[in-house]
Amino acid sequence: AVMQTFGSKLCSCPSFKLREVVSIYFSFVMLFLLILMAALQGSVPRRNDFPYKVPLDPKGLLELSWNVSYPEQVVHFQLLIKHLQFGLLFGMSDRGEFENADLAVLWSDGHNSYFGDAWSDAEGRLHMDSQQDYQLLGARKAPKGLYLLFRRAFSTCDPKDYLIEDGTVHLIYGILEEPVHSLQAINISAIRRGLQRVQLLKPNITIPELPSDMKTMEITAPDIVIPSQETTYWCYMAELPDGFLKHHIIMYEPVITAGNEALVHHMEVFQCAAEFDSFPRYNGPCDSKMKPDRLNYCRHVLAAWAMGAGAFYYPEEAGLAFGGPGSSRYLRLEIHYHNPLVLQGRHDSSGIRLYYTASLRRYDAGIMELGLVYTPVMAIPPGEDSFLLTGYCTDKCTQLALPAAGIRIFASQLHTHLAGRKVVTVLSREGRERQVVNADGHYSPHFQEIRMLKELVAVFPGDELITTCTYNTEDRRKATVGGFGILEEMCVNYVHYYPQTQLELCKSAVDPGYLHRYFNLVNRFNDEEVCTCPQVSVPQQFYSVPWNTFNRDVLKSLYDFAPISMHCNKSSAVRFPGEWEKQRLPTITERLQEPVPRCPPTPGSRPAAPIPVNLGELRRD
Amino acid sequence: AVMQTFGSKLCSCPSFKLREVVSIYFSFVMLFLLILMAALQGSVPRRNDFPYKVPLDPKGLLELSWNVSYPEQVVHFQLLIKHLQFGLLFGMSDRGEFENADLAVLWSDGHNSYFGDAWSDAEGRLHMDSQQDYQLLGARKAPKGLYLLFRRAFSTCDPKDYLIEDGTVHLIYGILEEPVHSLQAINISAIRRGLQRVQLLKPNITIPELPSDMKTMEITAPDIVIPSQETTYWCYMAELPDGFLKHHIIMYEPVITAGNEALVHHMEVFQCAAEFDSFPRYNGPCDSKMKPDRLNYCRHVLAAWAMGAGAFYYPEEAGLAFGGPGSSRYLRLEIHYHNPLVLQGRHDSSGIRLYYTASLRRYDAGIMELGLVYTPVMAIPPGEDSFLLTGYCTDKCTQLALPAAGIRIFASQLHTHLAGRKVVTVLSREGRERQVVNADGHYSPHFQEIRMLKELVAVFPGDELITTCTYNTEDRRKATVGGFGILEEMCVNYVHYYPQTQLELCKSAVDPGYLHRYFNLVNRFNDEEVCTCPQVSVPQQFYSVPWNTFNRDVLKSLYDFAPISMHCNKSSAVRFPGEWEKQRLPTITERLQEPVPRCPPTPGSRPAAPIPVNLGELRRD
Repeated sequence: AVMQTFGSKLCSCPSFKLREVVSIYFSFVMLFLLILMAALQGSVPRRNDFPYKVPLDPKGLLELSWNVSYPEQVVHFQLLIKHLQFGLLFGMSDRGEFENADLAVLWSDGHNSYFGDAWSDAEGRLHMDSQQDYQLLGARKAPKGLYLLFRRAFSTCDPKDYLIEDGTVHLIYGILEEPVHSLQAINISAIRRGLQRVQLLKPNITIPELPSDMKTMEITAPDIVIPSQETTYWCYMAELPDGFLKHHIIMYEPVITAGNEALVHHMEVFQCAAEFDSFPRYNGPCDSKMKPDRLNYCRHVLAAWAMGAGAFYYPEEAGLAFGGPGSSRYLRLEIHYHNPLVLQGRHDSSGIRLYYTASLRRYDAGIMELGLVYTPVMAIPPGEDSFLLTGYCTDKCTQLALPAAGIRIFASQLHTHLAGRKVVTVLSREGRERQVVNADGHYSPHFQEIRMLKELVAVFPGDELITTCTYNTEDRRKATVGGFGILEEMCVNYVHYYPQTQLELCKSAVDPGYLHRYFNLVNRFNDEEVCTCPQVSVPQQFYSVPWNTFNRDVLKSLYDFAPISMHCNKSSAVRFPGEWEKQRLPTITERLQEPVPRCPPTPGSRPAAPIPVNLGELRRD
Repeated sequence: AVMQTFGSKLCSCPSFKLREVVSIYFSFVMLFLLILMAALQGSVPRRNDFPYKVPLDPKGLLELSWNVSYPEQVVHFQLLIKHLQFGLLFGMSDRGEFENADLAVLWSDGHNSYFGDAWSDAEGRLHMDSQQDYQLLGARKAPKGLYLLFRRAFSTCDPKDYLIEDGTVHLIYGILEEPVHSLQAINISAIRRGLQRVQLLKPNITIPELPSDMKTMEITAPDIVIPSQETTYWCYMAELPDGFLKHHIIMYEPVITAGNEALVHHMEVFQCAAEFDSFPRYNGPCDSKMKPDRLNYCRHVLAAWAMGAGAFYYPEEAGLAFGGPGSSRYLRLEIHYHNPLVLQGRHDSSGIRLYYTASLRRYDAGIMELGLVYTPVMAIPPGEDSFLLTGYCTDKCTQLALPAAGIRIFASQLHTHLAGRKVVTVLSREGRERQVVNADGHYSPHFQEIRMLKELVAVFPGDELITTCTYNTEDRRKATVGGFGILEEMCVNYVHYYPQTQLELCKSAVDPGYLHRYFNLVNRFNDEEVCTCPQVSVPQQFYSVPWNTFNRDVLKSLYDFAPISMHCNKSSAVRFPGEWEKQRLPTITERLQEPVPRCPPTPGSRPAAPIPVNLGELRRD
């Protein structure tokens, strides 16, 4: 009964021995693969198939386009190689390093070319992956260069593979300028290579309908010359027209001078503080001594864009108010130029194009700061590879400040200084973690963009928003305290939401009295005299702690236990009425489960052999 | 070029559309499966194919035999169902619970029978597994009952599956006494069910050649009546013959009275202390008030067996010395009867058969205690689901006590009291973890057997042996301190090794002075008056700590930081000469990597559908 099906319809299959059956089975798998490849190699990629695009290298010779299929849990990549030599490496790794990386490799010995899924070990040596999860879909020569098409499941269940998650992905590339005879022969440290950060898993958002009275305004640099240095932050002051009424920004997009796509790293438009009647004009580097101090009062974000991002659309119910009374006419454009090749004399007029309307939408959008107060009481010991600090927005504050119908968070911008490695905000209700608001497990302080959330997050009175940042201080010899300085730290999530409320800041820090007990305890436990005299500043007290695992672990325990001081503020200086000192830490009775990675269906993985690619003969230049 | 191979040899395959190709592909997979099943269902399992055997239920109606293939990383199971009703569940779970379990299920609606790989969720509801990893190889009716043959890879990379590892595995079973129409219809809480602990991954050891002058001696119970209660520890005193010379025990095996296989849970033979000339005879329960106190001096293990274990062979270079001068003539047999059905009047003469020789082998074997000293300074706070304590055997001690050529550990018996959940000993050399000596991630205090190691572990002077135990005190309201009591805790690994050395104990505990600082710190930090007066005992001090996350975490930090007191002893009372107080904790600069589970090759996983099994009609009794 068990045998009667399928068999005879396709082939006549006499009673094979087991080994023969297995071998025939694999032959069929191979056959299937070959047919699949043939079937797909014919299809010509269309432009709109790949809505996202980013240059990989500073010259823009490698151009990555991609799309994301959430139903399939797969990313399709189209890599344009404008000038193919003897192949290239493309892949992903935790923070852009070439060790322990997950790589797709195209290589050629001059006559034959191959494609394979590989990984690099802790010493950077390349190995063929036992499970081939970068799946080549096609290779096509075109006037612009060679197009490589391939796909990768978000999660492959191969422990050698990178898990593609929400948030930042560090893409790496390497260019093979010499023929290579095997994958193993590639010396990864000797090739031209680099990294590019992108948000691969862009949210799949339907674009809201735009009103007919929509206008545009370009805030762009006035044909400046990009300085011939690796890093420049350029500041340019712009003004809204006189008597500009209240409008809603409903969309914005980057305007990038042709040819500078690989140089413009990120851009932000800030609105200046309304309490000053005027701001000086300025057009120059942001760190110049010539820059007027008053420009520091232009910090209200109107728009932010980073490489790899496209247009930013507000949800159709909301817009960002600007113009009108109580709103400054002055705007500051800040452009981060990343020029590692130190190109000279490049002109640039990049910036941001705002789309706005006078037909105000139902809700004003607002921005709220979650995380930690900027205070030195929250500190990170030196020499830590992964130290966590957590800031709380408590139920008491949301109870007081949010409307009964709640607010909807639709976008988020994570922020730390240089030691930040991960940031996550979780929504908790009645002690149970419910939802991740935004998470970036490969966060980089060099890549801070406003990200649309995949879905609106509703926050109601009594909810708690818990923001945790992970820091690395392995290269530091003294404690890193909280604060504004570039070598001090922050842990902030700027959430964009509607309808706007009075709550601008919902952040916390450890109670200073308990921190004082910690310094006393450290003093008594260790056989050393640590200066914990209260007349010394908190940073000085932290700098004088003799750091060891005990003092480090007890600081962790303190932060996990001690009551907090809440900043539940209308603006940075004005608190909501109430008692906000020595508040209990929120208790969490139920954590969110780590999502179990979905493995690709069985036919998704290929045998561990390079796939021949027909590129013809390749020659040296 | 890509297309030219395979195709025409097997079938003529016209240019299919992709969907058709995929569907044909699956047809081939199905075909392959069916052929495989047909091929394997014919083979008759031979007795020796399954060297390990254990009854699952107290009546012995379900009998599990198995073998282990390390090259394939697969366990083959043969389950004998002596009286099949409407199917059964067999599986594995963390600690024998029926929630979150990984199950193979055979079920019948009376007419048709099916087999499938399933899992139970946190509420105990059954679900078909999306990846079928219990692979049915055959079902055979025989006079004894139904034999089910199936296999399971150690690791399947399916997150719903149990990972089969070294150490204890909690097997679970359930009996279907009513017809069921689907897997989902099985109410797992309403069926007859139970658990059995075994070491599934028995080491694959070649049996050493046994000498021709080998003799045997049976230490067995003298036809006793098993008490009609669930748990009995039976004690019986035996004697070696007068003038018995020094011999080597080179092997031992269980002797189990036929019919009592499911009742005899574990057995140990102890030798008494040589300092007493005689010991009273005794034959009765170990906890009886009639038992002479002197029997407590019979604690030197000669042999230990637990359910599921077979014969124990010493390595061919070594034997366990007994007899001769300086060795007691008196032996104590201890048998643990597990009689959950409270059977009455069962006679039993089970015990252990020792195989020994007068031709002494090259080395005497020895036993060494690793882990924690039995002292209350090592304590576990109440209410913890997973609290770790670590005992150290330091480089300084092994430097002093081990011969230059080192010792070889060949077996290990892990030991904790009731709160123990995991035990692991790791060998570290020059600060780098090198090797796991023995690990049990599903350790149960109810299943303590001597386990042969898969390979000898060589320990040299200067090596460190670090033993970590994980405890669960969720059901306790006061701290659990170290000590001998059943509600106190131990963390010990008895390692069996050769050549014997003087080192009998290599264990540690936290320095009491640092613990005193901890009590002071707790006292000052918390706003309560905790009695830390030194005249109060350490257990009293622990009982008076107001437990909260801070006091718990700081205790952890203390144990991870404070210097230790070493017991580097020739016997429990005699230390090696040297300074053993306030020793630095070993530093570990490199941890062992968690082994990456090897996933089965692609054809290993089956589509998620039950497989029909031809068992004919099944009827109610």
